[in-house]
Amino acid sequence: MSLTTPGGNNLAQLIDHTKLNPDMNSKDLSLLCQQAKEHHFFSVCVPPFLVSEAHSLLKDSAVKVCTVIGFPLGYSKTETKALETKLALKDGADEFDMVINNIAVKNKDFESVENDIRSVVEAAKKRTVKVILEISLLTDDEIVKCCEIAVQAGAHFVKTSTGFSSAGASVAAVALMRKTVGENFGVKASGGIRNHSQAEAMVSAGANRLGCSSGIEIISKTQNSDSSGSY
Amino acid sequence: MSLTTPGGNNLAQLIDHTKLNPDMNSKDLSLLCQQAKEHHFFSVCVPPFLVSEAHSLLKDSAVKVCTVIGFPLGYSKTETKALETKLALKDGADEFDMVINNIAVKNKDFESVENDIRSVVEAAKKRTVKVILEISLLTDDEIVKCCEIAVQAGAHFVKTSTGFSSAGASVAAVALMRKTVGENFGVKASGGIRNHSQAEAMVSAGANRLGCSSGIEIISKTQNSDSSGSY
Repeated sequence: MSLTTPGGNNLAQLIDHTKLNPDMNSKDLSLLCQQAKEHHFFSVCVPPFLVSEAHSLLKDSAVKVCTVIGFPLGYSKTETKALETKLALKDGADEFDMVINNIAVKNKDFESVENDIRSVVEAAKKRTVKVILEISLLTDDEIVKCCEIAVQAGAHFVKTSTGFSSAGASVAAVALMRKTVGENFGVKASGGIRNHSQAEAMVSAGANRLGCSSGIEIISKTQNSDSSGSY
Repeated sequence: MSLTTPGGNNLAQLIDHTKLNPDMNSKDLSLLCQQAKEHHFFSVCVPPFLVSEAHSLLKDSAVKVCTVIGFPLGYSKTETKALETKLALKDGADEFDMVINNIAVKNKDFESVENDIRSVVEAAKKRTVKVILEISLLTDDEIVKCCEIAVQAGAHFVKTSTGFSSAGASVAAVALMRKTVGENFGVKASGGIRNHSQAEAMVSAGANRLGCSSGIEIISKTQNSDSSGSY
């Protein structure tokens, strides 16, 4: 499977260029958006508090604005997640990466898990919703179950990790998630993807979106290996 | 300063017995509440999703229910934090540990920082609001400024840490916070307090509340050193 054109744009178009530090500032956001435009990343993924600002910075570009909901622990109540989604939509978010309620998963309260996702999907009004499973906390059986619920609840992607847990994406989990959701659903690998070979491994395992804060390095290495050398 | 009675109850009464893991379940919550009743901790501190269940488990006891708002990154929008507070109040929460918006702090947008806190204070309707600064992300000057804003906004405590950042409470920060807020305001030390001597150091530095998941160990060591040995 080919990941890149000579310009590296195909791989760039899989990347949500991500900065979610709690102590980032508007200057960091401005740089992130500038980089995303320059390198043609699919989106920037930023905190809810910065969605409006990101939307303004990117309004004349093709770069989308992604944000996070109930992040990173997932145990906010459903109504809170739904409001957070509505507010972000109003502020200009195109995509919503919500964290699944893993307390409900561990309680085997799958009805609550599904309702929680469905409420965010409804609040997002047809825009893309990705369900972050936080695979480091889950067994393989739980990963499969959560994927099934995400599909059932009308989401658009499952996503491996928040980047704030003990571990991030793994090739095995991405493959399991792709196998479970089938070909017509999204799988986003995120957490710990810092270079081109890791990105390539995730895509080969079935990821069709990558969340990373090292997007430029990933792209640059791609281009170095292609000898296009423009970055 | 004496921290304990022979029964260790004074120290226990300073402790918010805390479990905030994203993969805890109702069995874990039940154990936490049972321990809090048995050891006479001031409160349990639990995820918003579990407030209602904790309230039911503790309804015949003196143990209060504390929860977290905008936790642990603090960059949810103000309206989201306010709704999260209202829902938790309705579910039976007595105390609300909100995370300050450190993006606004880093932007020196102190009006937003204060409005964010004030909205949670108003939503909490006179109940105790603690403002988590996440000291590991702040300079001393920022710690002082955040303490001043928390007082100004009508909160009741400043709190050192979420327990989900690179470092937790420090004696120096607790002393600085106490010095800044004065004697008639709360200071909660949290994050990494795992034994009696650490707890004692925090109280000596000015903390009048402790957030910890190792409360039983802290109390037990107290009692061992008092030779009361009932735990």
